[in-house]
Amino acid sequence: MGPHPAVAAIRLAVRRVLHDVLNEVSRNTAARPAAAAPAHPDASGPERAARAGTDRAGEPPLVLVACSGGADSMALASALAFEARKLAVRAGGITIDHGLQPGSDLRAAEVASRLSALRLDPVEAITVTVGREGGPEAAARDARYAALDEAAERLGAAAVLLGHTRDDQAETVLLGLARGSGIRSLSGMAAVSGAAGRYRRPFLHLDRQTARKACLVQSLPVWDDPMNADPAYTRSRLRHEGLPALEKSLGKGVVEALARTAQLCRDDADALDRWAAEADATVRDEAGLLECAKLYALPPAVRRRVLRRAAIAEGAPAGSLFARHVEELDRLITGWRGQGAINLPGRVVARRQGGRLVIRQG
Amino acid sequence: MGPHPAVAAIRLAVRRVLHDVLNEVSRNTAARPAAAAPAHPDASGPERAARAGTDRAGEPPLVLVACSGGADSMALASALAFEARKLAVRAGGITIDHGLQPGSDLRAAEVASRLSALRLDPVEAITVTVGREGGPEAAARDARYAALDEAAERLGAAAVLLGHTRDDQAETVLLGLARGSGIRSLSGMAAVSGAAGRYRRPFLHLDRQTARKACLVQSLPVWDDPMNADPAYTRSRLRHEGLPALEKSLGKGVVEALARTAQLCRDDADALDRWAAEADATVRDEAGLLECAKLYALPPAVRRRVLRRAAIAEGAPAGSLFARHVEELDRLITGWRGQGAINLPGRVVARRQGGRLVIRQG
Repeated sequence: MGPHPAVAAIRLAVRRVLHDVLNEVSRNTAARPAAAAPAHPDASGPERAARAGTDRAGEPPLVLVACSGGADSMALASALAFEARKLAVRAGGITIDHGLQPGSDLRAAEVASRLSALRLDPVEAITVTVGREGGPEAAARDARYAALDEAAERLGAAAVLLGHTRDDQAETVLLGLARGSGIRSLSGMAAVSGAAGRYRRPFLHLDRQTARKACLVQSLPVWDDPMNADPAYTRSRLRHEGLPALEKSLGKGVVEALARTAQLCRDDADALDRWAAEADATVRDEAGLLECAKLYALPPAVRRRVLRRAAIAEGAPAGSLFARHVEELDRLITGWRGQGAINLPGRVVARRQGGRLVIRQG
Repeated sequence: MGPHPAVAAIRLAVRRVLHDVLNEVSRNTAARPAAAAPAHPDASGPERAARAGTDRAGEPPLVLVACSGGADSMALASALAFEARKLAVRAGGITIDHGLQPGSDLRAAEVASRLSALRLDPVEAITVTVGREGGPEAAARDARYAALDEAAERLGAAAVLLGHTRDDQAETVLLGLARGSGIRSLSGMAAVSGAAGRYRRPFLHLDRQTARKACLVQSLPVWDDPMNADPAYTRSRLRHEGLPALEKSLGKGVVEALARTAQLCRDDADALDRWAAEADATVRDEAGLLECAKLYALPPAVRRRVLRRAAIAEGAPAGSLFARHVEELDRLITGWRGQGAINLPGRVVARRQGGRLVIRQG
């Protein structure tokens, strides 16, 4: 008898990602002169990739799971432990102690011992100091990723798996929608992200319920972070009130529709960014200044991206440059009636001068 | 003392649209040989446009308002009546009797008399027969627009104003989000739409509250359509439950963010459609067949649009061609492992053959 369908689903999701990781390790190894020798002829696909990885450092590649102890990441840890044994992959785990609640250090130690019980190795509990920048959720996230980056580097990990589910993705899309800043913020979390594609999200197409069920049938103890239910946090309100109300109005398919929207928006945003990058070279004069007439001829979606790129290139911080800034910049091109210089974040100043758009540090 | 701010806001919104309409009438008239004589030298902008319109048919252009008797469209009718008197514009009104509730004919007659009381002329109450196709909301909308089109043609109207507000736009974006079919369905309603830009939505950036307030301070009687509060309708559930819950989770700016998202998505979708139209010519062989290798090289967002266009060109009905159909088509290009022919709506069949993608009526 095979495993429970929920367990089969989480394992399949992890297996696919591990195959991708192994193939990439293999490609990277093959790209080095020392690894140019042909792989073993009777090995194929991931197996060969694993051996290629093995050849490099003398041991199989290491894949880490970032685990809070919650159902999603515990399910992920269990599937990683299971699948890694079948492939030539070492599996380890990291849990982060954000130090935001009393006893969080004990909690982290307990999660670490649960990861060790799954026979992950190495396992680390890492304590971080959470700052204040960007609000409590953003500050905790920044501290967490910095620690995961550091651990991945130090341990030489080929990848770090994250337990975000389709439900998390739907919430992220709605949070992006609330910013009203366009399709890049509607594209949610990427399946592969970070430096050299370090972070992987195998569960992005699985629902939270599947992860919970997989923990239940495997008798894995899980811990529900009280932050997830605290209505002081936007994401928590969205999870427990906003999204259920939206499902009640629009039907049960909303989470899936939001996740699909994320993927479509990501592809659209990538294509338009590429267009803007190519257009940039065609709208400048010999001195490299932006020509207003040529900008005017671009489709508005492309023009606004060119303007955004130009402001960022002159030092405007991407995170502080809002849609309204770019709109104001755009009016120098499309609604020119002699208006003066425009101040942008990062002390960047833009003005129209002799048919050129001049963007400079002020 | 000037008018109440809400009244000033609705009038300004209508004035801007009337200026656009007059400018276009002027351009169209100037384009005809008979109207090539110079406009009166001391007239400028809209005034000149209005006279140009006048010259053509012997009377100023007619602008209609589509009015349900609800607050949004009553406010619109009042603003049109006021602004039309200041410009050389004739203002008329149409109300549609959908015949879906007992006494709807009396209701329509009453709305028509209210429009006449605003000194709109001509005013018509038109009875339509609502079919069943696409569900009750879509069927009512189809019947309504068919009647408005007919009336606009018959009366020679230069434009038909619709009372959709920013709140309606936000609801439309969420309804599009629930379909999960990409940015075109996130782009909501256009400020200008229909044949030759006939339909105009002056209130797309005003909130519903402003329209209500404008009716109140002008002592205009309004009628609340019971369909708007009937939880049997998706839009009504969204208005009274889904959107308020989302605002509670995400903050008061949600409606504005959704409306801004609509505009950004519309521009993005237009740009990508343009790219796909241009790419189409570059990915075909001499016989006009789509070459798989060239399709593969396109960005995914552009490739999927080229595939969608190709399926529609062969007879697949646009409204029945869902994202999942296009994804399956796309796998013939990006995930080719010898799969067979794919059946699309409208009896269209797609198969990969000798490095070409062949899409045909099956």
